[in-house]
Amino acid sequence: MQTQGNNMDPWYGLYAARTAGLSASEVRALFAVASRPEVVSLAGGMPFVSAIPKDLLTGAVERTVRERGATALQYGSGQGMPALREQILEVMALEGIHAGVDDIVVTTGSQHALELVAKLFLDPGDVVLAEGPSYVTAITVFKSFQAEVVHSAMDDQGLQPEALRETITRVRAAGKKIKFLYTIPSFHNPMGVTLPWERRMEILEIARQNDILVLEDNPYGLLYFDQAPPHAMRSIEADGVIYLGTFSKTLAPGFRVGWAVAPHAIREKLILANEAAVLSPSSFSQTVISEYLGSADWKGQIDTFRGVYRERRDAMLSALADQLPTFSWTVPTGGFYVWLRLPDHLDSKAMLPRAVKELVAYTPGTAFYADGSGRNAMRLSFCYPTPDFIREGIRRLAIVINGELALLNEFQQTGPVSTLPAESEGVLPPFAG
Amino acid sequence: MQTQGNNMDPWYGLYAARTAGLSASEVRALFAVASRPEVVSLAGGMPFVSAIPKDLLTGAVERTVRERGATALQYGSGQGMPALREQILEVMALEGIHAGVDDIVVTTGSQHALELVAKLFLDPGDVVLAEGPSYVTAITVFKSFQAEVVHSAMDDQGLQPEALRETITRVRAAGKKIKFLYTIPSFHNPMGVTLPWERRMEILEIARQNDILVLEDNPYGLLYFDQAPPHAMRSIEADGVIYLGTFSKTLAPGFRVGWAVAPHAIREKLILANEAAVLSPSSFSQTVISEYLGSADWKGQIDTFRGVYRERRDAMLSALADQLPTFSWTVPTGGFYVWLRLPDHLDSKAMLPRAVKELVAYTPGTAFYADGSGRNAMRLSFCYPTPDFIREGIRRLAIVINGELALLNEFQQTGPVSTLPAESEGVLPPFAG
Repeated sequence: MQTQGNNMDPWYGLYAARTAGLSASEVRALFAVASRPEVVSLAGGMPFVSAIPKDLLTGAVERTVRERGATALQYGSGQGMPALREQILEVMALEGIHAGVDDIVVTTGSQHALELVAKLFLDPGDVVLAEGPSYVTAITVFKSFQAEVVHSAMDDQGLQPEALRETITRVRAAGKKIKFLYTIPSFHNPMGVTLPWERRMEILEIARQNDILVLEDNPYGLLYFDQAPPHAMRSIEADGVIYLGTFSKTLAPGFRVGWAVAPHAIREKLILANEAAVLSPSSFSQTVISEYLGSADWKGQIDTFRGVYRERRDAMLSALADQLPTFSWTVPTGGFYVWLRLPDHLDSKAMLPRAVKELVAYTPGTAFYADGSGRNAMRLSFCYPTPDFIREGIRRLAIVINGELALLNEFQQTGPVSTLPAESEGVLPPFAG
Repeated sequence: MQTQGNNMDPWYGLYAARTAGLSASEVRALFAVASRPEVVSLAGGMPFVSAIPKDLLTGAVERTVRERGATALQYGSGQGMPALREQILEVMALEGIHAGVDDIVVTTGSQHALELVAKLFLDPGDVVLAEGPSYVTAITVFKSFQAEVVHSAMDDQGLQPEALRETITRVRAAGKKIKFLYTIPSFHNPMGVTLPWERRMEILEIARQNDILVLEDNPYGLLYFDQAPPHAMRSIEADGVIYLGTFSKTLAPGFRVGWAVAPHAIREKLILANEAAVLSPSSFSQTVISEYLGSADWKGQIDTFRGVYRERRDAMLSALADQLPTFSWTVPTGGFYVWLRLPDHLDSKAMLPRAVKELVAYTPGTAFYADGSGRNAMRLSFCYPTPDFIREGIRRLAIVINGELALLNEFQQTGPVSTLPAESEGVLPPFAG
């Protein structure tokens, strides 16, 4: 997809400056190919909605039409339906968050909350701090408002507090204005890692000391495999955190219902921005979800999802151990993703066409950085394919990677090797787990 | 609602410059009061969704869950579902538009298409041309991207071509950049008037001559009372028009499904902006509407709406003739709104608290201007209240207006009259019809 405009576009001279920052994913065209059924896709982050029994939703949907049509079909409030907001309080209480029904703004998926927060805060040249790597479409949103995304280093326990301190100092020394820290503390996208409680407190303390707002994105927190992750950062800090939640992973993304919890003044602005953007979030979707939460065993359904994803995570980890035993990867205890590190001289983006030819797809690490990093890593999603397909996908992936390594090795023995750093050879230290 | 931030907001210094332009409606607090059931509200633009038989939607909703759950519950494409886009072509063909399925981008109501177009095109200080008056939340969106909305004069046949030429000349002479002309040619919000075919062609010609993009917003075109309005401007100009349609008025706003039809390069950018903002529009809503269009007599349902709104329009016009015979108002042949003009020395915004006390609400004319105009006009919506309530509402409104006039008259006879222009007395020339 051409994104910069050109002589074929008579309106090219009319676009806003920010539109130049709105770019299509580099791998978009390839993903269109990768959606063919014969390709095992470890690339997307689609939840396995087939795990939802049809009967679980049928009642909620029927009641929405038969009994609540007058409100479900109508425009609603820009803040969202009060009854649903009450129920969202119950959902968030599971992660230690205590808030009021007025603190919540319902959005068109939590993605739209990201867009609205970006619109409210970001001037051209502003800096958003984010984990490195970070969620690809958050980066897209921040860049679309002409902000600079500056990554701060992670390890197998998430964002490193010391590195964050240094990043803040460095950015401010360069005269740049930091607007907020964007973070996914639990079952990180794309790394799969989780920030321990002590680090959550330490990072909140750093944010307080530096007057930095924290944008806590938590789509996966309830999808843990063994034990719950630490409570949300919002559970101990109400004034300095905008918290984002969603029903996209615990129920289904097709409804496009998420929410933000924000300090009073910010929340009032979020409501105004929401009204300008969509008038009100879908009353129909909100009513169906409210009816579902009010009548179905939604906690049991989340347990079902946990079991499905745990089995798939296990399948992926054991396949990786079987097929790529000398490599390193993260070991998620919840969520959707494994982060696979490659030897430094492999380029996951350059390798992707070969992988798709071999009928397996993944997301190259570069997608998750605003600065071109991530070449020698990839995100592997275990959320959507069945365990058998995951095993087959990893088998195909190993063929591609080993083929690439053999090819490089051959060149290295017969041709110039100067571009390949010597220390990248052999087994890397394990990154996590 | 406080919108500018203050010392109570610790994050006040962090907002983007554009956020200062995101203001709450001046009459928002009053409208909260006006939503009490004892108040006859002629203020809102809510469609009368109770006119939709429940059974008409039940089948569509049940099939969505039982047969199409795998796609309806999942993320979808940023452009919208192909099957729905095919059906949208049929809807638009009723207004003379011939396009391809790839030309359409499904959005979260046509409101979100307005937001996306604004995001793509508007830099701070840019000018959007709009009818004067114009749709309130379009003005809000354009201002939220720091654009200046410049109104061009209307009469009882909509936008005046000669005035538009002069406005363009004047804006460009001031060194300002015009990004597009925003227009609602059929059953205008808030004026209720319709642009004749000759004017549509003339305005398109002016736009072509001046390289101005036209943003044609058409939520009401199919809701005509006697005969269809002229074909959409998009029907004869594909390269210079972004066309917006919606199911909010022909079906129900609760689904939040609208669409944009745009020239190729713009459309590709709209898709990217849509993906950044919401990932994809609601698959669930799209599937329900697609099933509805595929199985129900949707044209018959639009006929039902036409009958409902025609009866209400008639009730409002006859009540106005009975209660305020010396006033002037527009005579809509479709849509939701009548525009009532007051004598120049009445202020519809100042009068609103008195009206709400009298248990009737309307929208003051000032809401529909970016420049403070509209003081001596108001929008009266006939879409939602029953004919009896409309008659009662106009009766109450006449009491308020006549009371205000009597009061002013008394002051005029006993005190200084210098602020009241003499020519504003008595009967105004009829504005329309």
